[in-house]
Amino acid sequence: MTSAYSPKYFTVRFPQEYVAHVEINRADKMNAFFEAMWIELGQLFNQLSHDSAVRAIVLTGAGDKAFTAGLDVKAASEGTLSGKEEASDPARKAVNLRRHVGPFQDCITAVEKCEKPVIVAMHGFSLGLAIDLSTACDVRVCSRDVKFAVKEVDIGLAADVGTLSRLPKVVGNFGWVKEVAMTARLFGAEEALRVGFVSSVYDTKAEAIKGALQLAALIASKSPVAVQGTKEILNWSRDHTVQDGLRYTAVWNSAALQTQDVASALLSGIQKRTPTFEKL
Amino acid sequence: MTSAYSPKYFTVRFPQEYVAHVEINRADKMNAFFEAMWIELGQLFNQLSHDSAVRAIVLTGAGDKAFTAGLDVKAASEGTLSGKEEASDPARKAVNLRRHVGPFQDCITAVEKCEKPVIVAMHGFSLGLAIDLSTACDVRVCSRDVKFAVKEVDIGLAADVGTLSRLPKVVGNFGWVKEVAMTARLFGAEEALRVGFVSSVYDTKAEAIKGALQLAALIASKSPVAVQGTKEILNWSRDHTVQDGLRYTAVWNSAALQTQDVASALLSGIQKRTPTFEKL
Amino acid sequence: MTSAYSPKYFTVRFPQEYVAHVEINRADKMNAFFEAMWIELGQLFNQLSHDSAVRAIVLTGAGDKAFTAGLDVKAASEGTLSGKEEASDPARKAVNLRRHVGPFQDCITAVEKCEKPVIVAMHGFSLGLAIDLSTACDVRVCSRDVKFAVKEVDIGLAADVGTLSRLPKVVGNFGWVKEVAMTARLFGAEEALRVGFVSSVYDTKAEAIKGALQLAALIASKSPVAVQGTKEILNWSRDHTVQDGLRYTAVWNSAALQTQDVASALLSGIQKRTPTFEKL
Amino acid sequence: MTSAYSPKYFTVRFPQEYVAHVEINRADKMNAFFEAMWIELGQLFNQLSHDSAVRAIVLTGAGDKAFTAGLDVKAASEGTLSGKEEASDPARKAVNLRRHVGPFQDCITAVEKCEKPVIVAMHGFSLGLAIDLSTACDVRVCSRDVKFAVKEVDIGLAADVGTLSRLPKVVGNFGWVKEVAMTARLFGAEEALRVGFVSSVYDTKAEAIKGALQLAALIASKSPVAVQGTKEILNWSRDHTVQDGLRYTAVWNSAALQTQDVASALLSGIQKRTPTFEKL
Amino acid sequence: MTSAYSPKYFTVRFPQEYVAHVEINRADKMNAFFEAMWIELGQLFNQLSHDSAVRAIVLTGAGDKAFTAGLDVKAASEGTLSGKEEASDPARKAVNLRRHVGPFQDCITAVEKCEKPVIVAMHGFSLGLAIDLSTACDVRVCSRDVKFAVKEVDIGLAADVGTLSRLPKVVGNFGWVKEVAMTARLFGAEEALRVGFVSSVYDTKAEAIKGALQLAALIASKSPVAVQGTKEILNWSRDHTVQDGLRYTAVWNSAALQTQDVASALLSGIQKRTPTFEKL
Amino acid sequence: MTSAYSPKYFTVRFPQEYVAHVEINRADKMNAFFEAMWIELGQLFNQLSHDSAVRAIVLTGAGDKAFTAGLDVKAASEGTLSGKEEASDPARKAVNLRRHVGPFQDCITAVEKCEKPVIVAMHGFSLGLAIDLSTACDVRVCSRDVKFAVKEVDIGLAADVGTLSRLPKVVGNFGWVKEVAMTARLFGAEEALRVGFVSSVYDTKAEAIKGALQLAALIASKSPVAVQGTKEILNWSRDHTVQDGLRYTAVWNSAALQTQDVASALLSGIQKRTPTFEKL
Repeated sequence: MTSAYSPKYFTVRFPQEYVAHVEINRADKMNAFFEAMWIELGQLFNQLSHDSAVRAIVLTGAGDKAFTAGLDVKAASEGTLSGKEEASDPARKAVNLRRHVGPFQDCITAVEKCEKPVIVAMHGFSLGLAIDLSTACDVRVCSRDVKFAVKEVDIGLAADVGTLSRLPKVVGNFGWVKEVAMTARLFGAEEALRVGFVSSVYDTKAEAIKGALQLAALIASKSPVAVQGTKEILNWSRDHTVQDGLRYTAVWNSAALQTQDVASALLSGIQKRTPTFEKL
Repeated sequence: MTSAYSPKYFTVRFPQEYVAHVEINRADKMNAFFEAMWIELGQLFNQLSHDSAVRAIVLTGAGDKAFTAGLDVKAASEGTLSGKEEASDPARKAVNLRRHVGPFQDCITAVEKCEKPVIVAMHGFSLGLAIDLSTACDVRVCSRDVKFAVKEVDIGLAADVGTLSRLPKVVGNFGWVKEVAMTARLFGAEEALRVGFVSSVYDTKAEAIKGALQLAALIASKSPVAVQGTKEILNWSRDHTVQDGLRYTAVWNSAALQTQDVASALLSGIQKRTPTFEKL
Repeated sequence: MTSAYSPKYFTVRFPQEYVAHVEINRADKMNAFFEAMWIELGQLFNQLSHDSAVRAIVLTGAGDKAFTAGLDVKAASEGTLSGKEEASDPARKAVNLRRHVGPFQDCITAVEKCEKPVIVAMHGFSLGLAIDLSTACDVRVCSRDVKFAVKEVDIGLAADVGTLSRLPKVVGNFGWVKEVAMTARLFGAEEALRVGFVSSVYDTKAEAIKGALQLAALIASKSPVAVQGTKEILNWSRDHTVQDGLRYTAVWNSAALQTQDVASALLSGIQKRTPTFEKL
Repeated sequence: MTSAYSPKYFTVRFPQEYVAHVEINRADKMNAFFEAMWIELGQLFNQLSHDSAVRAIVLTGAGDKAFTAGLDVKAASEGTLSGKEEASDPARKAVNLRRHVGPFQDCITAVEKCEKPVIVAMHGFSLGLAIDLSTACDVRVCSRDVKFAVKEVDIGLAADVGTLSRLPKVVGNFGWVKEVAMTARLFGAEEALRVGFVSSVYDTKAEAIKGALQLAALIASKSPVAVQGTKEILNWSRDHTVQDGLRYTAVWNSAALQTQDVASALLSGIQKRTPTFEKL
Repeated sequence: MTSAYSPKYFTVRFPQEYVAHVEINRADKMNAFFEAMWIELGQLFNQLSHDSAVRAIVLTGAGDKAFTAGLDVKAASEGTLSGKEEASDPARKAVNLRRHVGPFQDCITAVEKCEKPVIVAMHGFSLGLAIDLSTACDVRVCSRDVKFAVKEVDIGLAADVGTLSRLPKVVGNFGWVKEVAMTARLFGAEEALRVGFVSSVYDTKAEAIKGALQLAALIASKSPVAVQGTKEILNWSRDHTVQDGLRYTAVWNSAALQTQDVASALLSGIQKRTPTFEKL
Repeated sequence: MTSAYSPKYFTVRFPQEYVAHVEINRADKMNAFFEAMWIELGQLFNQLSHDSAVRAIVLTGAGDKAFTAGLDVKAASEGTLSGKEEASDPARKAVNLRRHVGPFQDCITAVEKCEKPVIVAMHGFSLGLAIDLSTACDVRVCSRDVKFAVKEVDIGLAADVGTLSRLPKVVGNFGWVKEVAMTARLFGAEEALRVGFVSSVYDTKAEAIKGALQLAALIASKSPVAVQGTKEILNWSRDHTVQDGLRYTAVWNSAALQTQDVASALLSGIQKRTPTFEKL
């Protein structure tokens, strides 16, 4: 099955049945992103989303130094942000900038829209785009050496591919969100755990990945109909009233409850067996 | 006044003036719910909502083992979820499922819509429906022995009567919500306190109930106009923009501020007396 | 530049370039607010919002006893809430009450809408209106002696100028919000820190102010285009779906990214210099 | 099947298979509504909603004079609006009024929520509540003699059971809506047709009912899965963004498209036969 | 009472009790607006909003040629739009533009927020800002000679003070809105009537004003509690779901129904007298 | 420039500068759509959206018989809707159906999101998908021979790629929308004009196309910054409150107003010349 994935900037492994492990693979540049990478990221998660051999995904970064140091500023400064666009008119430059950032946002959103849960394990420098990307994941864990920062104000811009929209809905401490977003200061694993940005802190990168894979394996052992419905309804509910959330749940489940997984799960529970579920 | 309440599956007591104590009363089955129970629950809270002898409500479960073990799976497997509906057509089954879950959701929502604050004190097994129900309450406390789980994925379904819509708005740690909802794992009192799912942890069930009753008594000693307005506006604001929240507050209070309770409270404050308030 | 500010009930100082320090200046009455004060507050923050000499603001209260004890109940009881309005008709009284509270809410909202970040440092009694006001600020810190309470139910009313709409979106513990709002009980610095209402606790008022000023200075050293965009987008995102947040970010940044600040910041980063930014 | 319906204030007939005809049956009082009537109306439409023998509903009023003259002002003036409530406090009166109007609104909303399409045929006086009620229906027709008015301002109140919320979404002429709602003036069939409040005008009441029944029969001949989904999605879309509407449609149809009705309809189309559909 | 109004660019008359007539008074420049004018417009409608001697307002333009030819392009080209701002940086220019347009929008919104209904009678050239302004009014009428255009694209910009947000909610023909907004073409009285942009067309300006004043007089004869509640709830409902509209109505009316106007109106109806209502 | 477009199922012509004419090119099958066609449609409009040689687009169908007869039912019945999917489980079939309809909806939405205005000229059979597609266009015109129907209920399904979400926001007559959507009945050009579904009716298909091209040419002669901003803000405003619409407009225009087009347009207006605008 792994043969179906051959991305250039990422490595995709299948450490066990139904669990995919995606690694950002540009360790020599601290896994910094440039345009071709985020386009590939989006395509990769769109593919994983519909791959019935996948029930949970772990996302990590190669190398010792960084999950990702964020946007490759050098590449970017030669590109869109460099002021080298041909348009002479600020209104037309604005159009070009929007045409550029929209697809960039969509690539990050592909992680959120991926039907399968995504657990991100971060280590080392996890700056800027690392925060944008991780807030589009479902669960965040890290190693003790992690160095987080919402770095964008340090390069003169408001974070534009998701942190400012998602972070306030990921952690319930709006003052802290504002402080780290307006100062660009570093924060570490303990602080991230305390405010709820990460769920667990591990001693090393290896242990963080191991922990993430175990969580992925646990999720992958459950009914995929139930797990994927849970992800979808939680994301919908975040953005809607409780009443709209309840209605959406009822409509969603009116198809989902017709699965054989309910009977399988109930029977396995009675028989104290591990249930198996049809592909999805 | 208690004579007015004679539910079959619940016990209603009035341990002190203005405080109602509702107990789920099916201890031999770990207070597991079946359809007649949740319908009665909804009716009971609708009645309490308009009962001027009630200013605060405590909700608990009878017996040592469980607040509630959730849905009575055996009853449910013989009922709607069993695949025994007459409709042969998946589209028509979906309609039947929606017609079933809608009123079920409404019964849980009756707790949220109850004009009087509801404090739930949980102990022992508090699984599945326990989470749905408690997130519709205003304040959650528990005893140290509590065993929580968003259990639904273990029976092959996404939680459908409120947890997925309300839990992300009750606690400010979206990663934790996703983890517990997608793994169905148990979590205990300390973890629940740390993430803000419960406000207090008590050593025993008895102490948890005592603590909840004391909180209820404190709330019941305040102006009911002020308390009920506070509950309503907080629930409204959760689902609307700040600007819509402010406007709704202004319109609500344009009637509420005409209460004599303001003068009573101010005067009592000056005279250092306990104010009394007209019924509501 | 300070000469431009001569409020009556507030002191405005400029302890360092780009940092304004606003002090509530009615220490003999525990900085309690009456109508002329909140009108002036609104005007003051509207002015600061567009003052290019200001990049961050610290808000504190004069004297040892209180940041603010809240609404001046005596003044209020002689005014709108006293039942002395001329209208005999409850419907017409309601109109008068709405005409009164709307502008009051707008004055508090002026702090939230102020384009520059506002850090509030609270000490001593910080009751009622103190909570409304501080939730309209971006970051909250306090000294160890602080005594907080959402005090309004104790005077017979639901808080009406912002606490009930903003507090649930500032801290991610809805049960705690409901408890403190419905009991009016005091809570202290440690509890405030634990639930995320404040970001830092300092030993003394002086240290809290110093800490707030340092945070303000740090923020003021960043690109004002980036900082002000960050504040705006975070506030917008709180009230909208993630998708609407992303779109708004893209449209906002299509102008903001055309700033020279990006080039200045990037160059300064490479040259390890402190960047300077044009006024805003 | 008609034996299942025995309302007191309405007549229910089944003029042909799958078509129910509900008649308001208080002709001697111009079909004016009092509380027991609207409660019965709500119950009746809740029952029709789930009755698989019903696929479309026509609503009319008995007698020559009026579809309904609206609220029975005499009954109301002896009831809630009379100022005879026991509460002495305007805030408590407000609570009583809300507790009264909420269920009243729900009874009218039951017509909108009824899963089966409702066509209302109006004649003669169709005042006040007639407009509230008809805007909760799906299609409105009338006879030439109809006399419409949003009558509520003439009795000193803003219409409170639906007209002001639904009428602006039923017709696309906001100025006209404001004019008729603020003047309470009469308008007739031609004007109602011109602004789109009614779809068709018939010469007599009898012809209007006949036309409505023919429309109902046409709708009842279609797949009930398709028709009921269409009603639901149109109502949802009215209140949501296009993007939310599209998503809801996709989720709804993921169950609905699994009906045999699609195959039946396609085959009947090819064979030029009238399809038959399973009950719903 | 008229002595209280002395605007510079508008004339305010009181042709009869409770009816205010506001005339744009710059006929020599075809009533074109510059900044001081729209600021005064906002202040004027804020004052009218709370003036208990006013129950309905008619808005017209002085002179034969134009209701208003829109923005005074010459004044504007010397001002904000001229590119003469000091900021050299497009991001900072954007801030200046937003700081300029926000208050401009607020001035137009003041007409919509005015608690009293506003009827606008347009004649002659009614271009650009005329459309923005009139869509903030409640009812639009015109004379036969009117020449409308959403003129902004002809000067290189998207209309920015309300037309694009309000026009699609005023008329129910989105294709027509797009066509006139993207072509800037003229349209006349008949077309405006047909699409529902205006409610009535009169032969001359004098008759249009007379008609508007008669409508205002009719509205002013009704309960001001009922009329003002109707305006508010209709505007709220336009922007919210039906369910939110119903709830807001219930809360609003819980104060409003306690008016003596209901009894006065009912009694007058029975006695066939004209009711009188207390000031508001 | 046309060489850049070589779609298989569409013809793209450039009848004059800045105007693209897209023709559905499957006349022998009445331009019925199958999957490869709608995917190409989406790609084509994404390309046109960013093509600076295009300022307005006309969409038509080849042949005499039909704009489009809708979905190619035969192709569809062999595909997704045929019940031939491999999944045996209704829940898994539902997932497959959602994975299928989502991209289909996105292809139609590409027309709405296309930055350039799209005018559709319909003739002959314009059924089902024709309505979905045309409601995603900005302006609709038709020839006298057109035969419209929201045809989906006749094949047993609720329209699922846009009609039910967009049509109620395109025309302001909700009763008519419900009637045509629930009966699937044919309606013609006059009725479409009367309810505002089309803006103009032409005698022949050729004249309709000519009229659409003239409208496109007129729009293409305006500032593209202004026209494209107008389309975007109108679409945004349809789905948001007026207040959110105004704010979005202000933010959008803070970049757009910095265009040279304003100066060009103003100057050309004074000099009575036709302005020329830089590419976009």
